[in-house]
Amino acid sequence: MRLSRYFLPTLKDTPSEAKIASHRLMLRAGMIRQSSSGVYSWLPLGLRVLKKIENIVREEQNAVGCHEVLMPTIQPADLWQKSGRYDDYGPEMLRIVDRHKRDMLYGPTNEEQITEIFASSVHSYRELPQILYHIQWKFRDEVRPRFGVMRGREFLMKDAYSFDIDKESARRSYNKMFVSYLKTYERLGLKAIPMAADTGPIGGDMSHEFLILTETGESEIACHSDFIEMSLANEDIDFKGNLKPIVDRFTSKYAATDEMRDPEAEKALGDNLVTARGIEVGHIFNFGTKYSKPMGASVAGPDGKDIDVEMGSYGIGVSRLVGGIIESSHDENGIIWPDSISPFEVGVINLKVDDADCDKACDDIYKTLLEQGKDVIYDDRDDRAGAKFADADLIGVPWQIILGPRGLKNGVVELKNRKSGEREELSLESALSKTSE
Amino acid sequence: MRLSRYFLPTLKDTPSEAKIASHRLMLRAGMIRQSSSGVYSWLPLGLRVLKKIENIVREEQNAVGCHEVLMPTIQPADLWQKSGRYDDYGPEMLRIVDRHKRDMLYGPTNEEQITEIFASSVHSYRELPQILYHIQWKFRDEVRPRFGVMRGREFLMKDAYSFDIDKESARRSYNKMFVSYLKTYERLGLKAIPMAADTGPIGGDMSHEFLILTETGESEIACHSDFIEMSLANEDIDFKGNLKPIVDRFTSKYAATDEMRDPEAEKALGDNLVTARGIEVGHIFNFGTKYSKPMGASVAGPDGKDIDVEMGSYGIGVSRLVGGIIESSHDENGIIWPDSISPFEVGVINLKVDDADCDKACDDIYKTLLEQGKDVIYDDRDDRAGAKFADADLIGVPWQIILGPRGLKNGVVELKNRKSGEREELSLESALSKTSE
Repeated sequence: MRLSRYFLPTLKDTPSEAKIASHRLMLRAGMIRQSSSGVYSWLPLGLRVLKKIENIVREEQNAVGCHEVLMPTIQPADLWQKSGRYDDYGPEMLRIVDRHKRDMLYGPTNEEQITEIFASSVHSYRELPQILYHIQWKFRDEVRPRFGVMRGREFLMKDAYSFDIDKESARRSYNKMFVSYLKTYERLGLKAIPMAADTGPIGGDMSHEFLILTETGESEIACHSDFIEMSLANEDIDFKGNLKPIVDRFTSKYAATDEMRDPEAEKALGDNLVTARGIEVGHIFNFGTKYSKPMGASVAGPDGKDIDVEMGSYGIGVSRLVGGIIESSHDENGIIWPDSISPFEVGVINLKVDDADCDKACDDIYKTLLEQGKDVIYDDRDDRAGAKFADADLIGVPWQIILGPRGLKNGVVELKNRKSGEREELSLESALSKTSE
Repeated sequence: MRLSRYFLPTLKDTPSEAKIASHRLMLRAGMIRQSSSGVYSWLPLGLRVLKKIENIVREEQNAVGCHEVLMPTIQPADLWQKSGRYDDYGPEMLRIVDRHKRDMLYGPTNEEQITEIFASSVHSYRELPQILYHIQWKFRDEVRPRFGVMRGREFLMKDAYSFDIDKESARRSYNKMFVSYLKTYERLGLKAIPMAADTGPIGGDMSHEFLILTETGESEIACHSDFIEMSLANEDIDFKGNLKPIVDRFTSKYAATDEMRDPEAEKALGDNLVTARGIEVGHIFNFGTKYSKPMGASVAGPDGKDIDVEMGSYGIGVSRLVGGIIESSHDENGIIWPDSISPFEVGVINLKVDDADCDKACDDIYKTLLEQGKDVIYDDRDDRAGAKFADADLIGVPWQIILGPRGLKNGVVELKNRKSGEREELSLESALSKTSE
């Protein structure tokens, strides 16, 4: 992508309304623009990252046999009256009256809608287990939206729903999603810690939140220090096999969010206690027949008798993850992206635009990188070197190949690594091979 | 995909509420489910097709240098008060009051939102021309939603917006999008005819609709018979060059929608007149400074003076296209997909599930096709052959490899072509090579 033709409205000044680093950086890097309180437009750079995260989440859902659907954003109120949640949900639900005076709402979650689809589609135990998911915009009318996309009102969520014939099978679905979530976060370059959680308005008897540790998280969490090093470590996981040992490994040690903390247990941990701030990036629930029973989601069992299906739901905040990742990975100059979601893999910075030799040399490097199939951002703008360096660091270009008249004369380019900050002069060939490591 | 584990709730009976073929077929094929009047959930089969169309539309937008953004579904009313459209838009606009009593709306289109983003981001003529687009759900509260996804309330639209420094450059952007649209429709396997159009509530002085000809379109259109054969015919188009000759070729002959028809001109056409029903699948507008002026979208020109930018907007109804394509390509047994958007490329039908030899042979064919990188649907359900044949034709599996004990004994498979209806017995190798043609 040539920056001169791209749409990257970076800001020099720090927007005063942004209280935390990720919000400031997303605004400054031209990733998002506020539309109204807690509602954002995603500009090209932000959308690139959002899509990369969305695709990783989708791939991991598909990998464990979930099927993708897409439910609408606007739901009829009568669905929620059936489950009993219409009155319970409170002012966070965006309620709407259409032109025919029918009560509608902007879905804050989709248990009712998916249960209705399931109930009208599946009639035999032989069609179970089944896990359906979608990645769709939701709206929760937060009383005080803040922290940019981290606590917005309109947000993108992946929510999956499992349907099983009995509690044992439901537990297997729960475990499958639990481990799949660990894998998803690891691919996103995140250390996410599962913590037993309140079930809140979703209901149910078993629930975990996944939190990442950051400087400015909304929740003060505590956990055993072993969690810091714990990982799936590229284990080859058989998702059709027994996943309980992995779940046990990740749940047997103490880890608790704000409202679940236990002073006794923490005292017992001694030096092994870690406290930190955390951001919730996922939440999973097993809630049995809470929705299947009132909404008639039953199937014929082996003996022909109707059985209410056992359900669970599994959410990942896709748009919130963009903020969460930046919150956990940035420095004073800008964003440091995990490789898997970096909007660009490599940048080319032309230090003297309109100098025929520099233009040609940089154009050639750009073409070479494109031919290698790289996501390249090419700063061919007529601007000061300092402004170009600042923008490259701000938006987090992982490798930056920098070339001006002096380097051209000496037959070298400068290569900067965003993460380490290291800069070195080397031949173009060496630079290209480093960026491919 | 193994059908036994897929989520494909096909219906045997024709739903009585569906008045046209595409609506009936989408419900019967388990592609969509109604949530409320004019609002649908997309089930896995439908979503596959929707995504394939969305991706083709996206690729063609990117190919001509448009940049993708994503604006929210919920917009603040004050944006629309600035442009003057808030009062004009009428009851089709879904109006919402949030918990703080602020007036909001579900975006029916995005001229205001994108103009605001542009105005706060671009300040110099040197950053023009620019075309931004997004693919996002819209809501129009139709008084009588009908025809399934063809005239729904919540629908997926690609809308692009061009920004130029003067009328001449704006005309070039318009031409670029015009030709890009022709290319997009051809990739989708559609014959779309551009017709001069009313500008309606969008405004402006130049506008074209793109219509496809079908049995049951909403508009009775008339055009010169030459349009039936006219195509870009894989021309290698230089989108940076002069596109006026192509636009002229596609606009110089008579073609008119319902409200634009001219009896005199039609009489003059004599035998060259074609009348048919048509479905609108795209609409493009050039509307000058209608939004840039009230919303302050101006840039500094070469002499430093502020200039209101010239704008255009360009819509393609992505979800509507699913219905439109089925409307123009089906038979009494089901859907016939254009190759580019078929949800599956090939199917395997096991005629005797639980027969060890049949299972093994079909499993092997399935694996071979997967290894070839094909999108395969494998009917491994324990069901009657007739039901399987009916489902394969209903959902439009283009090539169907059919195998049972008799074929297995004779060393042949049956290969059915969905479009021609031809069935032939041949060796597995020949069948596989035919499906790759």
